[in-house]
Amino acid sequence: MTVHTSALADHACLIVHGPDRPGIVAAVTALIARNGGNITTLDQYSSNADGGEYFQRVVFHRPDLAAAMPVIEEDLTATVTPLGLEWTLTDQSIPKRMAILASTSDHCLLELLWRHRRGELPVTIPMVISNHTNTAEDVRSFGIPFFHVPSQGPDKSEAEAKILDLLRGNVDFVVLARYMQIISEDFLDAVGVPVINIHHSFLPAFIGAAPYRKAKERGVKLIGATSHYVTKDLDEGPIIEQDVARVDHSMSAADLQARGAYVERAVLSRAVQWHAQDRIIRDGNQTIVFS
Amino acid sequence: MTVHTSALADHACLIVHGPDRPGIVAAVTALIARNGGNITTLDQYSSNADGGEYFQRVVFHRPDLAAAMPVIEEDLTATVTPLGLEWTLTDQSIPKRMAILASTSDHCLLELLWRHRRGELPVTIPMVISNHTNTAEDVRSFGIPFFHVPSQGPDKSEAEAKILDLLRGNVDFVVLARYMQIISEDFLDAVGVPVINIHHSFLPAFIGAAPYRKAKERGVKLIGATSHYVTKDLDEGPIIEQDVARVDHSMSAADLQARGAYVERAVLSRAVQWHAQDRIIRDGNQTIVFS
Amino acid sequence: MTVHTSALADHACLIVHGPDRPGIVAAVTALIARNGGNITTLDQYSSNADGGEYFQRVVFHRPDLAAAMPVIEEDLTATVTPLGLEWTLTDQSIPKRMAILASTSDHCLLELLWRHRRGELPVTIPMVISNHTNTAEDVRSFGIPFFHVPSQGPDKSEAEAKILDLLRGNVDFVVLARYMQIISEDFLDAVGVPVINIHHSFLPAFIGAAPYRKAKERGVKLIGATSHYVTKDLDEGPIIEQDVARVDHSMSAADLQARGAYVERAVLSRAVQWHAQDRIIRDGNQTIVFS
Amino acid sequence: MTVHTSALADHACLIVHGPDRPGIVAAVTALIARNGGNITTLDQYSSNADGGEYFQRVVFHRPDLAAAMPVIEEDLTATVTPLGLEWTLTDQSIPKRMAILASTSDHCLLELLWRHRRGELPVTIPMVISNHTNTAEDVRSFGIPFFHVPSQGPDKSEAEAKILDLLRGNVDFVVLARYMQIISEDFLDAVGVPVINIHHSFLPAFIGAAPYRKAKERGVKLIGATSHYVTKDLDEGPIIEQDVARVDHSMSAADLQARGAYVERAVLSRAVQWHAQDRIIRDGNQTIVFS
Repeated sequence: MTVHTSALADHACLIVHGPDRPGIVAAVTALIARNGGNITTLDQYSSNADGGEYFQRVVFHRPDLAAAMPVIEEDLTATVTPLGLEWTLTDQSIPKRMAILASTSDHCLLELLWRHRRGELPVTIPMVISNHTNTAEDVRSFGIPFFHVPSQGPDKSEAEAKILDLLRGNVDFVVLARYMQIISEDFLDAVGVPVINIHHSFLPAFIGAAPYRKAKERGVKLIGATSHYVTKDLDEGPIIEQDVARVDHSMSAADLQARGAYVERAVLSRAVQWHAQDRIIRDGNQTIVFS
Repeated sequence: MTVHTSALADHACLIVHGPDRPGIVAAVTALIARNGGNITTLDQYSSNADGGEYFQRVVFHRPDLAAAMPVIEEDLTATVTPLGLEWTLTDQSIPKRMAILASTSDHCLLELLWRHRRGELPVTIPMVISNHTNTAEDVRSFGIPFFHVPSQGPDKSEAEAKILDLLRGNVDFVVLARYMQIISEDFLDAVGVPVINIHHSFLPAFIGAAPYRKAKERGVKLIGATSHYVTKDLDEGPIIEQDVARVDHSMSAADLQARGAYVERAVLSRAVQWHAQDRIIRDGNQTIVFS
Repeated sequence: MTVHTSALADHACLIVHGPDRPGIVAAVTALIARNGGNITTLDQYSSNADGGEYFQRVVFHRPDLAAAMPVIEEDLTATVTPLGLEWTLTDQSIPKRMAILASTSDHCLLELLWRHRRGELPVTIPMVISNHTNTAEDVRSFGIPFFHVPSQGPDKSEAEAKILDLLRGNVDFVVLARYMQIISEDFLDAVGVPVINIHHSFLPAFIGAAPYRKAKERGVKLIGATSHYVTKDLDEGPIIEQDVARVDHSMSAADLQARGAYVERAVLSRAVQWHAQDRIIRDGNQTIVFS
Repeated sequence: MTVHTSALADHACLIVHGPDRPGIVAAVTALIARNGGNITTLDQYSSNADGGEYFQRVVFHRPDLAAAMPVIEEDLTATVTPLGLEWTLTDQSIPKRMAILASTSDHCLLELLWRHRRGELPVTIPMVISNHTNTAEDVRSFGIPFFHVPSQGPDKSEAEAKILDLLRGNVDFVVLARYMQIISEDFLDAVGVPVINIHHSFLPAFIGAAPYRKAKERGVKLIGATSHYVTKDLDEGPIIEQDVARVDHSMSAADLQARGAYVERAVLSRAVQWHAQDRIIRDGNQTIVFS
């Protein structure tokens, strides 16, 4: 279960991923031990007992980690790479840099800013970009830069270029906090970092626009929200987290939307926290979440 | 909220439905008062404050109800019908007769039989019909008749005719407790009573066959079940109740199915209880549920 | 189910309460009809079918309500009072005035301010009073007056007197949004309006101070929060709403507290909304909640 | 998350427990690797980063496990014991033997029998013992022996002696499925295996008898159930699992009890499944649950 935490001094997170075979855990944990690390969390998953895909996340404490990182990486290259495994080693004391793209709706945006201020999201927030200005004052009251990049008609290329200029080199991932603009393939190619979206339905139900109206028309008894990585296939990217709330016949589409806002902000917050803590591994169009 | 209950002596349930206008509640409650009834529950809903559709459910206690029913019905015809309203009056001391159609899966079937034995479903169960025989002994141990009507290939007409022969005149509604056979339009026309189904997904997601496999492939984080009235449009009938359970990447499609079984039996049980207590009003392809 | 709403023009809410007897609903609804009202919501509850206590809430629409109020009240006095019933009639277009008392914790306070700004709480907020100053800037950014009244040692009488001076005549109810000070009997006697508290446990478990630490020590698997009316018996007042969140062995008491914050703000928000909409009737040490 | 499963051929579960120190994971996983095992699940928890208590559960696959067990145990004694750690190695292909003690209530009892028949509980059930006879036929219809041991007045020693005679040597753990008799200290000393109880409240709220009545009187908005290991301190043993259900003012104590029955059977089932899969480690009066 996710534990409330900020960045962790002298802790590293090692993600290992590749074809399963006996002895991986032993090899990896021996490597950590001989490099002076003490494991605090270890999760692993194999997609299939016989020859499946293997995924492992280890967090370990190592005094003077920053100095030791190159040596550990060398050892990983020498020991783990030959096993056919890919690995990523990150220093958990360095928070990821998260940009937020927003629009007029403030609920997801403010929830992230507020959790960040409480120390519950191990990230820095170098900027919020919005195609409207209504949230500028709120954002700046948290001490965070706000940039206004208006959307201008069907040709989004100019606006996207401006956003890319702002993001380039400054962020480790991007969160669409009810941004409500379709992101182009070109943008995704250019941005070069993961993009997390919150969709206001329980995907794959009610794909596309106006999901609360569709939910009302279909007469569902629960509404939901879905956070997923953005890919070129709209609303089809790997799902990170979902949740639902109960509704009934007496509620209008606007009522569903108001209630849904609370599901959206909770679901997006969990997705962001897990991503920031390297708890999510993408596996094709699915996710492994070591929550 | 639904209260645990069996059939209620000397209680009537009045459903009123039609175009909204001022004074309906007053007219209906005055009628009940002058006929010696004491209201124990009243729920109403208007689809629109200005000229919408009005729905009301009233349960009232009336000593010697059976004798008074014709007089009350006469009063309703004289007073409520002229307001353009449709009404239904039912004696809550008479349990509805429920037939269950099942297949090899036993979880929904046994849940209904077990809740019935505990006195939580105000119904009688004149028969269980299955296209397999594996549950025969279990069903009969509850003192309930079991009939075996095998499904025989793509032409279902013969099996459906046999089922209709068994049901005709003997039941007030039919429950498909994971029956797994597509019901023909002819059957629905002929059966003449409501048919309730449990679908093993959170509709409208994963319509059609093998929803747990599809859920696994899509990588959803919650699985669900949906109980709905059966119409000619497969998986598209009015939704009565839905619920979900949390799943994760480590679970196989078979695991999802096993976990989903517990959602299915809970969702179907609530739908059956509400239907048996006249708590559901159909409104086009939606339901008003006074739960 | 509670519907998202702000204050409702030309709508009145009538609460009726007293010994049950046949015909109350008919008498009340006839009164509303003859005064030109159209009922939009009616809920009722009787504590006992035979001679129990009766509770009813009716919301009705009446054009030009403000002008008609005195006439309706006269009719209620003439018709409903003689039945031995107490009643309250409120104009739903007039939002209740809510004061918030807070301390250093900001999560419940900000949640209320934020929901209010979204138009989801039909109240005005004439003031926030805190015994610390850390939230002053946030509160004022919502356009709401902030007053600092420090708590000074064991003798709270001076601070309470200052708070009473601020509240007197200006508020219809008071919310303790993690105020963390014990309210004296004298204060409760003097304030003269309902006081709503949020307690950070699933009462009656973990009564008193430090509930998250106690929860950790006892090893519970769920933590909760409880909103209740404040009475002279600490933590013993009528419960309005409760909810829980799942926790596990790996979480520290601080983790429980962080997770619990999200339960607290949701539970308190629902309690405040229901109170503001006259959905709660106190019945001894219990509440009837027509949510 | 718990995966639906029955007993697992050639899989062992190793529990390790003791003072934390760097290198434990590496030492244990190296041991498993050199003994030909392939780890399929590894969970660990340390109560404190600096010198806390360490808990680890590893499941590994080892062809021809039964033959290799003595060698692995020898290696554990030589390698892990000197680290100051206690360990337990169990063959997951051998289901634990579970006795159920019941009384008149059948809901928890039948849920366990039915889940067992579905293959969801990796146990054998050598016997059900009840102080009443009403469930005898149901139990035997599952092919399970039923023994009637009446409770006879305040002196339980004779009945407990009979139960001990039945259990001795035949069971690995005992489940009290709403047994409703207080177990004596002598019984607990003599039985020599873990005893799991289901308590019909959200402990520590409503300790003792008649929790649903107390919940009604206190006016709570959620009711719960708690499964815990039985110790000499009544209702105070280590909590394994808890859950809740929503209730409201309109429900009687009997309604709460009916609704609570569904929480009880779900909570007890999860607790039994986790215990049967060696997922629970006791830590003083708390539990570590690797669910």
